[in-house]
Amino acid sequence: MSLQFPRVALVGKYQDSAPGATVESTREVVAEIAEFLQSQGCEVVLPERTARSTGLDSYPIMDVATIGAECDLAVVVGGDGTMLGIGRQLARHGTPLIGINQGRLGFITDIPLGEFRDVLPPMLHGAYEEDHRSLMHGTLFREGESVFEAFAMNDVVVNRGAAASMVELRVEVDGHFVANHRADGIIVATPTGSTAYALSAGGPLLHPLVPAWTLVPIAPHTLSNRPIVLADPVEIAIEIVSGRDASASFDMQSVTSLQHGDRIVVRRSDSRVRFLHPKGWSYFDTLREKLHWNEGGV
Amino acid sequence: MSLQFPRVALVGKYQDSAPGATVESTREVVAEIAEFLQSQGCEVVLPERTARSTGLDSYPIMDVATIGAECDLAVVVGGDGTMLGIGRQLARHGTPLIGINQGRLGFITDIPLGEFRDVLPPMLHGAYEEDHRSLMHGTLFREGESVFEAFAMNDVVVNRGAAASMVELRVEVDGHFVANHRADGIIVATPTGSTAYALSAGGPLLHPLVPAWTLVPIAPHTLSNRPIVLADPVEIAIEIVSGRDASASFDMQSVTSLQHGDRIVVRRSDSRVRFLHPKGWSYFDTLREKLHWNEGGV
Amino acid sequence: MSLQFPRVALVGKYQDSAPGATVESTREVVAEIAEFLQSQGCEVVLPERTARSTGLDSYPIMDVATIGAECDLAVVVGGDGTMLGIGRQLARHGTPLIGINQGRLGFITDIPLGEFRDVLPPMLHGAYEEDHRSLMHGTLFREGESVFEAFAMNDVVVNRGAAASMVELRVEVDGHFVANHRADGIIVATPTGSTAYALSAGGPLLHPLVPAWTLVPIAPHTLSNRPIVLADPVEIAIEIVSGRDASASFDMQSVTSLQHGDRIVVRRSDSRVRFLHPKGWSYFDTLREKLHWNEGGV
Amino acid sequence: MSLQFPRVALVGKYQDSAPGATVESTREVVAEIAEFLQSQGCEVVLPERTARSTGLDSYPIMDVATIGAECDLAVVVGGDGTMLGIGRQLARHGTPLIGINQGRLGFITDIPLGEFRDVLPPMLHGAYEEDHRSLMHGTLFREGESVFEAFAMNDVVVNRGAAASMVELRVEVDGHFVANHRADGIIVATPTGSTAYALSAGGPLLHPLVPAWTLVPIAPHTLSNRPIVLADPVEIAIEIVSGRDASASFDMQSVTSLQHGDRIVVRRSDSRVRFLHPKGWSYFDTLREKLHWNEGGV
Repeated sequence: MSLQFPRVALVGKYQDSAPGATVESTREVVAEIAEFLQSQGCEVVLPERTARSTGLDSYPIMDVATIGAECDLAVVVGGDGTMLGIGRQLARHGTPLIGINQGRLGFITDIPLGEFRDVLPPMLHGAYEEDHRSLMHGTLFREGESVFEAFAMNDVVVNRGAAASMVELRVEVDGHFVANHRADGIIVATPTGSTAYALSAGGPLLHPLVPAWTLVPIAPHTLSNRPIVLADPVEIAIEIVSGRDASASFDMQSVTSLQHGDRIVVRRSDSRVRFLHPKGWSYFDTLREKLHWNEGGV
Repeated sequence: MSLQFPRVALVGKYQDSAPGATVESTREVVAEIAEFLQSQGCEVVLPERTARSTGLDSYPIMDVATIGAECDLAVVVGGDGTMLGIGRQLARHGTPLIGINQGRLGFITDIPLGEFRDVLPPMLHGAYEEDHRSLMHGTLFREGESVFEAFAMNDVVVNRGAAASMVELRVEVDGHFVANHRADGIIVATPTGSTAYALSAGGPLLHPLVPAWTLVPIAPHTLSNRPIVLADPVEIAIEIVSGRDASASFDMQSVTSLQHGDRIVVRRSDSRVRFLHPKGWSYFDTLREKLHWNEGGV
Repeated sequence: MSLQFPRVALVGKYQDSAPGATVESTREVVAEIAEFLQSQGCEVVLPERTARSTGLDSYPIMDVATIGAECDLAVVVGGDGTMLGIGRQLARHGTPLIGINQGRLGFITDIPLGEFRDVLPPMLHGAYEEDHRSLMHGTLFREGESVFEAFAMNDVVVNRGAAASMVELRVEVDGHFVANHRADGIIVATPTGSTAYALSAGGPLLHPLVPAWTLVPIAPHTLSNRPIVLADPVEIAIEIVSGRDASASFDMQSVTSLQHGDRIVVRRSDSRVRFLHPKGWSYFDTLREKLHWNEGGV
Repeated sequence: MSLQFPRVALVGKYQDSAPGATVESTREVVAEIAEFLQSQGCEVVLPERTARSTGLDSYPIMDVATIGAECDLAVVVGGDGTMLGIGRQLARHGTPLIGINQGRLGFITDIPLGEFRDVLPPMLHGAYEEDHRSLMHGTLFREGESVFEAFAMNDVVVNRGAAASMVELRVEVDGHFVANHRADGIIVATPTGSTAYALSAGGPLLHPLVPAWTLVPIAPHTLSNRPIVLADPVEIAIEIVSGRDASASFDMQSVTSLQHGDRIVVRRSDSRVRFLHPKGWSYFDTLREKLHWNEGGV
């Protein structure tokens, strides 16, 4: 097969996203992969942030919107955090992403750094598996006005304040009253986010092909307030009924000091993120590896 | 609106399905609803089993296949068990069902017996909400041959034997290896079944509109073997790797003494069950009621 | 039997502790119980706070320390919060407490307001069940110095900051390293507290006679970080390893902005709280009632 | 220090208790340890079963009761199952046990086979940590008569029949009604058993020093039927209220086909099992290792 991706953006890790990786190692790693991509016939560009953090100056620099408009592929080297960050931004452009993990194996950055020379060439020529991930769009409404908006690939979380004892949250789905939850908070997670915070809070794993969100209460006062899986065309609204200093987070971007009556509304974005994996990739292999299902232990 | 359902099958409860209801009360209740349906202009027929258990002899009697072919609606009086039983049989015919509960409120039999005179007339004239439920088709393969087949509206369960300590089950999804589970068993549940046994075993609630199954291990040895939600076009295969006297249940129909190498394969049925609810019905209202979310308690 | 408690302190509810009760209703209720206690031959005194909030001026007023030294019994009318608050203060004096609930049945305020005229007289004459509850003493150490101390009847909780993603906590028991927990936080709960926040976070119920604490991680990153029950003579130390704005709460008294290296040390207090219940009282009856085990529902 | 244990019983693994170990390897291993113990000045005896399975004929053979009466120590080589089996039998004699694991690290067999030459000598001379484990005594009563009795180090389990849907169990503690549980079954576990089946079913970890049992319902119908920790002097009674083919297991010894009205009564045995560990041993180190708390994973 011929080269499928003539122009490739190479994205280095966001600071702190891959524990154990240093700035120097990132510079070296990005340089090495860039050269390799060129040797494969690709034109390589760097996003501003990567150019700045690595100091590499021999490649064209683009802002993310231009990358979305003009590049055929983004190769990301870092951890899941980096991948989610850039994926969120490229979703509207449909640019596919390949993830190389620069530390521990991630749920989505599944190519070990040491193997990129073997794994990338067939992918660049069209031998890959596509893995589409849904994206949430969250809006914070105060007195009926939108005061904050953001996309989220993992989750939208509403949380009690640090010194408050509990928050009471009214949940509605497509205008139907679901419940008033008294809890530490509520997580609305995508299938991608179902292996992150939602899992710690007791939520189920959602396969990426399931067109659904999971709504997971955190330490709910009522023991039967179990996680619910909802079809993803629905609109989920969470209203602050009581509780001081509640906050809302959209993939870690936080708005604090929410007020009673504030509503966080979550909808599916029209865009999806396109991840590419090596041929033979299986979501379940990653689960098994990350969740230590192989080890015969407890 | 005009009468939508000229010919109605009236189905009485299966024995023991509604705790507290006696045979006499069922006869009386069925007679009363039959007369009411006639007064609304419907022709009423009874399935053989209901005719026999109530002794009512003034209505035409049909077997279930004929009901499916010739009736426009089934009105079921009993509990969720009765509703699931007849729903499973009528699914292939597309006959809609209305459930009247003769004991406690059920998850799907949501019209209280005392209210049918008010609730049914508008529904008979077309004012209702449709609620479609997916159906699973399970097959037990031994040495490559199908040896048992059944439909399930709630779940397919593979369980260890009573005196055995554990069963080891190999799970595959569309041919991809998922995990070897050592556990008391595994439940594959529909959204309908997600409020039944799967919930007790730690599974999430699945809204009926989510096109998915949940795969819930029962008391798994490996603590990270958490419930997984899978898109419902997949084929799930569960193979007995080790463990004595394992059994497989398809909505309570059981096959015991499974052998090593036996495979239980679960697919979505092409048919769906059509439940009708009164206008304004919300799945969440039922959840809230059944799970005691209202009571301000723990 | 003769009167066992000649001098009784009557304690009204702390503000907001019993949802639904108003100041006026509290004044009336306290006046009524005070008269009743006098009619039974008891001398009645009021703590300052109750005298102030009710405006009752015909009874001697004492501070809590004097009540501990000079009263034979405290009758508390309010909710569990009020009972815990005064119980914590009276523990060192060994003063027994009787709880009358002014709202919903509590776990420890188990005499309904409407029944005190029947229930109190035999108790005042010695017919009661004793129920002793252990008490924790928590200390916050910064750079080796104690900077905060408090008693807790329910729990000591260390929590992440509101906008932080996670806290990392090092747990030691009697100097032995247990684990580094990455989580929303950790709860150390008494048997009394095992029905409160710890239960919401997934902890077990501890019968009051079990001489133990339960250590419950909140939304732990590692799925096998399960609740642990520890013998209560141990000393538990929790150190902030990383995470911004962590806080520590001792029965809701909070210290915020903890620093890395801060240590929260929990020990059993030498004092216990003495609750008195009507003859025939059983802890399990309360559990069954509060946790809705009776209702045949899900 | 002088030799503390002049006469040592050396116990080989029970068949199948350590996956991966073969009969031949066991013979070799037992012979090697026996010679080593003699070289340390110990007199070595073998229980009948070990002598038979290994074919070693140069050591005195004793039945377990004689070992209990005449040996100073039992060195067990195998897995946790072997250790629990012999521990149960030696408890009444107070004979201490040291466990060498012949496969994977166990919760109680904590000396790796490869290290016994370094680890045993100081222990034989008195440098060890004592770790006492409580033991349960279970009795099955039918129509008031005891029909089966057994000791259990891990747990007593009452389970539904394989093809039955659920069992209803009435639980009483010291004659107080606790609850009617509808579930797959109930586990009553010791602290030792809290890391076994009870953990899989959602129970907490109990430190061996906690004088308590945990009562863990398996897949309970009522979601608030959470695990309860009970002080171990209590008597726990579980009565079969309904459900076909229920069974009771005492550390895997099973009685099947229980009848309605059958009662399983669990009390603490007067004996405890004495495990010896190398100096510096910590229960928490074992937990961390076995539960993979170290691995930074999910």
